[in-house]
Amino acid sequence: MIVNMLSGATEAEINHVVDRIKECGFQAHLIRGEERTVIGIVGNSDKHRSELEALQSAPGVEELVRISHPFKLAARSCRPEGSVFDLGKGVMIGGPEVIVAAGPCAVESAEQIHASAQSVARAGAKLLRGGAFKPRSSPYSFQGLGREGLQLIREAADANGLLVVSEVMDPSQVEEMLPFVDVMQVGARNMQNYHLLRALGETTKPVLLKRGMSATLEELLLSAEYIMAGGNYKVVLCERGIRTFETYTRNTLDIAAIPVVKQLSHLPIIADPSHGIGRRDKVAAMARASVAAGADGLIIEVHPNPERALSDGAQSLYPDQFAQLMAEIRIIAPAVGRRVADQLTMNANS
Amino acid sequence: MIVNMLSGATEAEINHVVDRIKECGFQAHLIRGEERTVIGIVGNSDKHRSELEALQSAPGVEELVRISHPFKLAARSCRPEGSVFDLGKGVMIGGPEVIVAAGPCAVESAEQIHASAQSVARAGAKLLRGGAFKPRSSPYSFQGLGREGLQLIREAADANGLLVVSEVMDPSQVEEMLPFVDVMQVGARNMQNYHLLRALGETTKPVLLKRGMSATLEELLLSAEYIMAGGNYKVVLCERGIRTFETYTRNTLDIAAIPVVKQLSHLPIIADPSHGIGRRDKVAAMARASVAAGADGLIIEVHPNPERALSDGAQSLYPDQFAQLMAEIRIIAPAVGRRVADQLTMNANS
Amino acid sequence: MIVNMLSGATEAEINHVVDRIKECGFQAHLIRGEERTVIGIVGNSDKHRSELEALQSAPGVEELVRISHPFKLAARSCRPEGSVFDLGKGVMIGGPEVIVAAGPCAVESAEQIHASAQSVARAGAKLLRGGAFKPRSSPYSFQGLGREGLQLIREAADANGLLVVSEVMDPSQVEEMLPFVDVMQVGARNMQNYHLLRALGETTKPVLLKRGMSATLEELLLSAEYIMAGGNYKVVLCERGIRTFETYTRNTLDIAAIPVVKQLSHLPIIADPSHGIGRRDKVAAMARASVAAGADGLIIEVHPNPERALSDGAQSLYPDQFAQLMAEIRIIAPAVGRRVADQLTMNANS
Amino acid sequence: MIVNMLSGATEAEINHVVDRIKECGFQAHLIRGEERTVIGIVGNSDKHRSELEALQSAPGVEELVRISHPFKLAARSCRPEGSVFDLGKGVMIGGPEVIVAAGPCAVESAEQIHASAQSVARAGAKLLRGGAFKPRSSPYSFQGLGREGLQLIREAADANGLLVVSEVMDPSQVEEMLPFVDVMQVGARNMQNYHLLRALGETTKPVLLKRGMSATLEELLLSAEYIMAGGNYKVVLCERGIRTFETYTRNTLDIAAIPVVKQLSHLPIIADPSHGIGRRDKVAAMARASVAAGADGLIIEVHPNPERALSDGAQSLYPDQFAQLMAEIRIIAPAVGRRVADQLTMNANS
Repeated sequence: MIVNMLSGATEAEINHVVDRIKECGFQAHLIRGEERTVIGIVGNSDKHRSELEALQSAPGVEELVRISHPFKLAARSCRPEGSVFDLGKGVMIGGPEVIVAAGPCAVESAEQIHASAQSVARAGAKLLRGGAFKPRSSPYSFQGLGREGLQLIREAADANGLLVVSEVMDPSQVEEMLPFVDVMQVGARNMQNYHLLRALGETTKPVLLKRGMSATLEELLLSAEYIMAGGNYKVVLCERGIRTFETYTRNTLDIAAIPVVKQLSHLPIIADPSHGIGRRDKVAAMARASVAAGADGLIIEVHPNPERALSDGAQSLYPDQFAQLMAEIRIIAPAVGRRVADQLTMNANS
Repeated sequence: MIVNMLSGATEAEINHVVDRIKECGFQAHLIRGEERTVIGIVGNSDKHRSELEALQSAPGVEELVRISHPFKLAARSCRPEGSVFDLGKGVMIGGPEVIVAAGPCAVESAEQIHASAQSVARAGAKLLRGGAFKPRSSPYSFQGLGREGLQLIREAADANGLLVVSEVMDPSQVEEMLPFVDVMQVGARNMQNYHLLRALGETTKPVLLKRGMSATLEELLLSAEYIMAGGNYKVVLCERGIRTFETYTRNTLDIAAIPVVKQLSHLPIIADPSHGIGRRDKVAAMARASVAAGADGLIIEVHPNPERALSDGAQSLYPDQFAQLMAEIRIIAPAVGRRVADQLTMNANS
Repeated sequence: MIVNMLSGATEAEINHVVDRIKECGFQAHLIRGEERTVIGIVGNSDKHRSELEALQSAPGVEELVRISHPFKLAARSCRPEGSVFDLGKGVMIGGPEVIVAAGPCAVESAEQIHASAQSVARAGAKLLRGGAFKPRSSPYSFQGLGREGLQLIREAADANGLLVVSEVMDPSQVEEMLPFVDVMQVGARNMQNYHLLRALGETTKPVLLKRGMSATLEELLLSAEYIMAGGNYKVVLCERGIRTFETYTRNTLDIAAIPVVKQLSHLPIIADPSHGIGRRDKVAAMARASVAAGADGLIIEVHPNPERALSDGAQSLYPDQFAQLMAEIRIIAPAVGRRVADQLTMNANS
Repeated sequence: MIVNMLSGATEAEINHVVDRIKECGFQAHLIRGEERTVIGIVGNSDKHRSELEALQSAPGVEELVRISHPFKLAARSCRPEGSVFDLGKGVMIGGPEVIVAAGPCAVESAEQIHASAQSVARAGAKLLRGGAFKPRSSPYSFQGLGREGLQLIREAADANGLLVVSEVMDPSQVEEMLPFVDVMQVGARNMQNYHLLRALGETTKPVLLKRGMSATLEELLLSAEYIMAGGNYKVVLCERGIRTFETYTRNTLDIAAIPVVKQLSHLPIIADPSHGIGRRDKVAAMARASVAAGADGLIIEVHPNPERALSDGAQSLYPDQFAQLMAEIRIIAPAVGRRVADQLTMNANS
């Protein structure tokens, strides 16, 4: 941490800051410039860190500048080569293959989820997405099928050789979901639900952690740190769009998050272009851009009949649009040294 | 809802939209302009609302424009005269008195919370604030004293004739907190934690609901709706700053939220200038501005020794700064037809 | 400036940075922490400053942290007591009186501007606002009356004892406007039109400089610096709302800008609540809040017939609403040690 | 335009709005829903449009919803097949080839600009970029070489078969620049400098119009409309990053702007990943993403010696990084049906 003193700070004010730094168990290094004095704080003492922060409004202080990242286990330096791990059945994330999860926003019926599973599996997806518990901004909207939805998505995934990723909204749901789900998804609204993050840190299931709508990348990594601090290192980050002044699109997909996270952290990062843009006809462009920027995977909403979807129909791809997109990213992936799974060759019966 | 067709939309596309509207149980009204056709949707059928939304990406559709607010119980029209209710012991929010809650960010010790309670009560506060459970972006920061903190703040409040407002972070804490707390605070990070909102809707305790860092005012009112839909109508909204590009301040206190919420909703709204600006020397300016804009109350961080606070020391007022601020808002309140409680006259011993 | 090295930076990388700092004519101070090394740069040499900035992507560098403000003449330290200056005819800005400018968005006709001038003068305004050259986002909107508008506003102001503030859009208009205008307004869209700023710096007219819609406060002060660097120190800053994700209001009036600018700079700062919120019925709340936060003045849109205004009708106050607002801020101003001019007592003829 | 009445609007209020609409020369269509009345405005009359807008705060009105885009010449419907035009010497923008402009931020010397031109031409760029007039947020920063810079960049471009794109900051520079420049660049800060836009509309030179830091896409297209309204239809739009709360990157490159503009307008759109991200090591990722999203071109900062650049050194690519990037986008372009110019084969002497 650096304390940046005001240009007119007095010696007494400087000495007070130095004294406080020492009282907190750190060392103080003064740099006296022509215009102002800067004080570097060196040492390591979690105990008094909050007192250090209070220096921000000590007399004569202009501002405190933090220079080290507050995340540790998530930091690149912990595993400079990058994390590669198994999501289940040998599906490795973080490695040379771009992993794609696809499926409807919500599980609506056996027919819907089976049709979804079959079409996305054929096109090359490795995970089936679909919510059983849906966070909705209105209490009057469809809230998901619950346990029945979990059973339906598990069956549909198994029948098509797919893994299941589904959203968990509350610590109380964790136990119930574990038998049905391969990857536990934490939604953007829950990125800082610390009770939920801690509960997931105590499991061994991979977690897909979505960036909050107004979360900085540092905050995203701190939320990952909550999970990792519990012993669960299988965290996949997900950029899904941030909130900006531009209203033409639902959110602004911050594709720069991909290379930035790759530098700051060893964790894999994927993109959710469906929520990132919110309009079906532009999802493919954003998906391609994410792969070109180096994403480790994608999660995409696909619905057999988007016009009748119970949620997010406007941003769900038709199955053939999804297959077309998979073909496009197969062309792009080699530009970043990656590859995408082949389309399945169908036999005559399917 | 209005469907805005593209200027080149074909008759077939227009007919398709009209047919879908009817299938969903609504009526369609066409307005054919010189440049484009607009279709008004009239009727009421929650069941197929999501299918209507999927029209957004039907062929020939430019966009869907929602014209009615999705909140109902929170809407001004539900109680045009505005809500006024008792937070406990006759402290009425929403009425002519500007109600002030004050105290430290976190309960740290008996001494600290008692000193805080005494000073804020003398200056005219009616509620004592202080966290027992602290949401911290880093898992390595001080997380609060828990149950012991609840007991300490209750004792300090009772000894000084104050009510207690404290933050609840998870549905599992609700039962434990009820005996100790008069107003349950939902923090900005949990504004869309729907399980928590529903759990609070089932109690009869007043709830202080803080606006999320990137939540629109409509989303804030929808979160209030979650609580009210459970039968608990005692919801106090709180503007605490939104996240913008300006980094000099911790957040941007959106003071316009006060008059806007007053128009959209009957619920009381207060301001949190401490989190809204994040720097002690500017808290008073933002508190005064909030009262001048018509806020029903304030919640302010005050600490007997901010430089040694375990959290938020940089934005906590010294007790005498708080007393000075209370004197200033006593001057301002009459400009908006309000008043602020008097300073307590101390006897010789105190 | 501080160079924050990556935690794994090598000695060679550290040495390279130190060498580059010295080559640029500065001194380097190393602080070696447990985790990483930080290098303080001391000295003063404008010539090689941009080369220093290129260090940001030198090998082993995490980031460059600038610790001194890039503005000089606008800095508080230049005039710690604050600037107070005459806008014309003894109307002093920055002193104990809160100065109010009011009038229509655009000068539309002699009748309209005279009616406006009379009503705002009576209520206590000291300046008449009104555009003769209008920046409009569409080339098809009303662009102002030009020179004729200048003459009309000058006459209306003179007839009512008011000063004139009007917007200049291009360096080519400066000469033409000087005889008619007391305060030259630079609009938000032109805050970084450096040719215009330089042209105004060569005059002796006071300049009202509006903050750009997405300008940081530091950028606002740098734009003031452009004017002051030319020798014109009479710059009044104006907060008029920034662009955020919240769309219910036209902009988000960043009232915190007022106390922040007061700390960073000696220049007066006023608020424009009309553009800041964009809706007539909420302008008064934001105006009161600005005064309560310590603004040196206000600029407010008032129109004798807002429903028929050629621009900004939706946010213009009716004359009696303006008079009511002036009465309210007369109550508030003493809370911040200020006062507001009295309403004029009218004789029987007026 | 649609007028959305409040749910409690009276008949008198509805009638008043209908009357005003008719007085302005439009027709009013009422849709009476269960909850509220909506009034569609049909007709075409630019003259009274501003009066219509003032309806926004007429009694009983909740809000006005604009449903048609205010730009006309820039609208897709004007040229549904998309604009393809010659930037000079047969370099066609908007067609199958992804056009790349590259070079230093500023022209610094003959050696620097020649070295830049040679390296970018070899790698496949078609335009040489480089500023002679530099908009700098501080008046104390390097402001460009002016006319000398124009001559240097022209010579360097001609010697390497490149076109020249360079920034114009003020209408007074247009004449001087025309002989030296093939494409006139309008910077982000000047996107709403209407005098400059009009001056460029009177020339026949292609214009590269950068999106303002906080401009919506609609505002970008309205600025293009200013140029086109003067008769110059050769406008190339450029996404260069918007300002958001995320501070790790200099700006947030809004890649979604590419497919959105492609839908709204027929004009070509390119991306500026250098300003969009501001950090050299992430420029290539954003450039690849832009091509994958369908950009018609790129403009990239390349400098022979970034560490000693007089501006933007931190985001400038080394020549070999640029060549590598060009190789990567040659792989990606076919995924969107495009191609990228080949690398030049050098003869033995070069």
